[in-house]
Amino acid sequence: MALNEVKALTFDVFGTVVDYRGTIIDEGEQLNRQKGWQIDWAIVADAWRGRYRPFMERVAHGELPWTKLDTLHRMALEEILEELHITGLSEEEKTQLNFVWHRLRPWHDAVAGLTRLRTRFTLATLSNGNVSLLVDMAKHSHLPWDCIFSAELARAYKPDPRVYRLAIELLSLQPHEVMMVASHQNDLRAAQAEGMRTAFITRPLEFGRHHIPNMTADPSFDIVATDLIDLANKLNTDSWG
Amino acid sequence: MALNEVKALTFDVFGTVVDYRGTIIDEGEQLNRQKGWQIDWAIVADAWRGRYRPFMERVAHGELPWTKLDTLHRMALEEILEELHITGLSEEEKTQLNFVWHRLRPWHDAVAGLTRLRTRFTLATLSNGNVSLLVDMAKHSHLPWDCIFSAELARAYKPDPRVYRLAIELLSLQPHEVMMVASHQNDLRAAQAEGMRTAFITRPLEFGRHHIPNMTADPSFDIVATDLIDLANKLNTDSWG
Repeated sequence: MALNEVKALTFDVFGTVVDYRGTIIDEGEQLNRQKGWQIDWAIVADAWRGRYRPFMERVAHGELPWTKLDTLHRMALEEILEELHITGLSEEEKTQLNFVWHRLRPWHDAVAGLTRLRTRFTLATLSNGNVSLLVDMAKHSHLPWDCIFSAELARAYKPDPRVYRLAIELLSLQPHEVMMVASHQNDLRAAQAEGMRTAFITRPLEFGRHHIPNMTADPSFDIVATDLIDLANKLNTDSWG
Repeated sequence: MALNEVKALTFDVFGTVVDYRGTIIDEGEQLNRQKGWQIDWAIVADAWRGRYRPFMERVAHGELPWTKLDTLHRMALEEILEELHITGLSEEEKTQLNFVWHRLRPWHDAVAGLTRLRTRFTLATLSNGNVSLLVDMAKHSHLPWDCIFSAELARAYKPDPRVYRLAIELLSLQPHEVMMVASHQNDLRAAQAEGMRTAFITRPLEFGRHHIPNMTADPSFDIVATDLIDLANKLNTDSWG
């Protein structure tokens, strides 16, 4: 598989590198304490993430013009607050809550794994998050990216092939020299269709303890790893054939 | 001037942050020793930089399609080698020489100044260098950017207004919240025309000891600083009105 030709790794971020569900729940529980609420923020987190794909599809299908993920998150949040009858948030508090996506905390292995990987590879995000969201998150959570690539640069959301093609072009590399790293198999399959290498990171807790996703990896993926430290181990040149 | 509203700094790189002329001369002199040559690499460096603007103008005027700076550098290098009758470089050696632009060394103040500025501001490149050039340089020279913005993202070269507008858009900021930092006044005037704040860095040695440029700053610039440490001092909130 010539994995020793890989020069850059591009990362899905939400779920693969950061724990959006846990962070939303924690920040929501702080809000509960401030406001004297008893909201179940796991329901909010799941509803918010559940609207992620349908909103992006509205952009893909031309029902919405190109729209940053921050704005799609805010539109989804408004719907959820209404559905769950959550009132009493000021405009400023809603903006603050919406920006929880800029403050997502890494999985425990992520910073250590990325730090090791960065000594050998160029590390880029390749996320549907907008650039400023990803930059803020990197500063907040000390994620050591070499560069921030986003669907926003292609003005199309993954798995649109233009997103992967743009990353390869900006890296000035051949597709097989770039490895997509993600905990979502559809993201990896789309990268594979562009000729990229693939690493599947199993994140059983992405959707919470009661919704463990199917972890059976497509056998065509180049690497399956339990986390980013395991990925760094598996990309160690010592083990390359 | 409300400089306390500035949230992000965008940097010109060649000349402002790194010493391209000194690096080309040093690497060229290494090549002299390897090859037994007596080439004056200051002449090569000046000729290479001299072709920078004309080549980018060929892209701007549509004589060339969008072309990465790496490729324009290579086209210019071929002309210079021929003009100066420099022969005896293999294809691999020419590629290696052309990539000196990926290995440019920072001015002595640059890493320390950027490291201080980064604690308070988002720091982005905003260079005509292509993305992979800027990423390689950052890794090679330990430049602590938060994100890499390049003319390549807009497929237009500075001072085309689209380059500055794209940076503002990707940062999700208002123009007056972004400060362009450059040692070239035309770059700053173009940023100013888009509503950005401006910091002029005087770099008297950019073109060598015998070609000191006019350092008289346009009085409309928000800050004039002697280097990036001086810029960090001048952006200290203590001094804000």
